[in-house]
Amino acid sequence: MPDVTDTATLNRSEQKRRAILAAGHELFLKQGYQGTTVDQIAAKAQVSKQTVYKQFGDKEELVFDIVSAVLENAAAPVLERIAALAETTDLEGDLAELAVEYLHTVLAEPVTQLRRLVIAEAGRLPRLAEMYYRRAPATTLEALAGTFGRLNDRGLLRDTDPSMAADHFAFLVVGRPIDQALFFGGTRAKADIDPAHYARHAVEVFLAAYRPTVY
Amino acid sequence: MPDVTDTATLNRSEQKRRAILAAGHELFLKQGYQGTTVDQIAAKAQVSKQTVYKQFGDKEELVFDIVSAVLENAAAPVLERIAALAETTDLEGDLAELAVEYLHTVLAEPVTQLRRLVIAEAGRLPRLAEMYYRRAPATTLEALAGTFGRLNDRGLLRDTDPSMAADHFAFLVVGRPIDQALFFGGTRAKADIDPAHYARHAVEVFLAAYRPTVY
Repeated sequence: MPDVTDTATLNRSEQKRRAILAAGHELFLKQGYQGTTVDQIAAKAQVSKQTVYKQFGDKEELVFDIVSAVLENAAAPVLERIAALAETTDLEGDLAELAVEYLHTVLAEPVTQLRRLVIAEAGRLPRLAEMYYRRAPATTLEALAGTFGRLNDRGLLRDTDPSMAADHFAFLVVGRPIDQALFFGGTRAKADIDPAHYARHAVEVFLAAYRPTVY
Repeated sequence: MPDVTDTATLNRSEQKRRAILAAGHELFLKQGYQGTTVDQIAAKAQVSKQTVYKQFGDKEELVFDIVSAVLENAAAPVLERIAALAETTDLEGDLAELAVEYLHTVLAEPVTQLRRLVIAEAGRLPRLAEMYYRRAPATTLEALAGTFGRLNDRGLLRDTDPSMAADHFAFLVVGRPIDQALFFGGTRAKADIDPAHYARHAVEVFLAAYRPTVY
C-alpha cells in the first residue's frame, strides 16, 4: 500500500514542519531573532538540527515563513470589509465598523509582537521588512485607496487623491494606538482607548474633510 | 595645583564616558542590543571593561543613557514650535510649518534607527520603552493638546477634546511616514513623499474637522 505509506510519510514530515514553525514562532517572540539559535528551535520542536535545515534552508527562511503564515490569517477580514465598503449604503456607519475591526486587528497581540520582531531586524533582514510592509500596511492602504476611488465615482466622497485619503483614514484610526502598541504591546494600547469611541471620532474627522460639499 | 589636577581627571573621565557612549551607540545600532557585548563596546571605546561598568553600571544603563541623550536633542525644536503656535496669527500657515518640521524630525535617520532599537527590546527592556514613549511621542502629544486647548480658548479651533485633536493632527502628519520608516528607514520614507505637500494636505484635513463653523 504505497499510498498509505506516502501519506504517512507526508504527514510525519508536515507534522515536523508545523512543530518547527510553532517552536520558532515562540522562541523568536520570546528571545528575539538574534537571541535564538537553530539548535534551540530543533530542541523545542523535538527534531534534529538537520531536519530544520532540510525543511527551511536556514534561520532566515524560517522567520520569513513564520511571518508570512501569521500575515496570511490576520489581514483577510479587514481587506474583505474594505472591499465591501465600496458598495455601502451607509457610509458613516460602515466606515465606523471598519475602523473598529481595523483597530482590533492591528492591536491583536500576535500581530503587534510580530511587528516588533520584523522592525527589530529590519536593518539586518531587509527582505523580511519588505515582505511585511508590502503584505500588511501597503496592501491595506491600496485596498482603501481603491474603495475611496469607487466612493468618489459614486459621489459619496470628494474628488481627491485616493492614496492620500487612504493614508489619512488609516492613521486617524490606528496611528496613535499602533504606535503605542510598539512600545507597550497591543493589550495596553487597546485598554488606553475605547475602540468604538476612538473609531467614531476618526470617522467624523475623515468625513468632515472628505464628504462632498452640498450646496 | 589641585584644581587643575581635578579638572584634568574630570576631563579624562568625561572623555572616556563620551567615547563609551559613542561606541555603544554605533554598535547597538549596527548589531542590535542583544548582539552587542560590553567587551565589544570597551574595545571600540579603547577603555577597559571595568571602566564601562564603573561609569554606567551595566549594558542596560548604558543603552538607557544613549537613548536619553539622543532624545534630549531631537525633541526640543518641535516642542518650541508647538508652544509658539498657541499665540499664532496665521493658524493654517503655522500648522503647515510645524507639520513640515515634525516630519523632518521624526524621519531623521538617527531618530528612526533608535526607535527601531527601543521597539526591538521593548519586551525585554520595558523601562527603556516607557522612557522613550514618555519623552518622545507622549510629550509631543501633550504639548499639542495644550496648544489646541489654548487655540480653542482663542476661538480658533472648535470646542472639542484636545487630546483627541492632538492624536489626529500628529498622525495625519507623521502616521504613514513614520510607520514606513520603521520598515525601510527614514531616508526612504522621506523620499517617498514631498514633505511640504504631505504636510499641507494633513493640515487641510485637520482644519476641515477642527475649524469652528462660521454662521
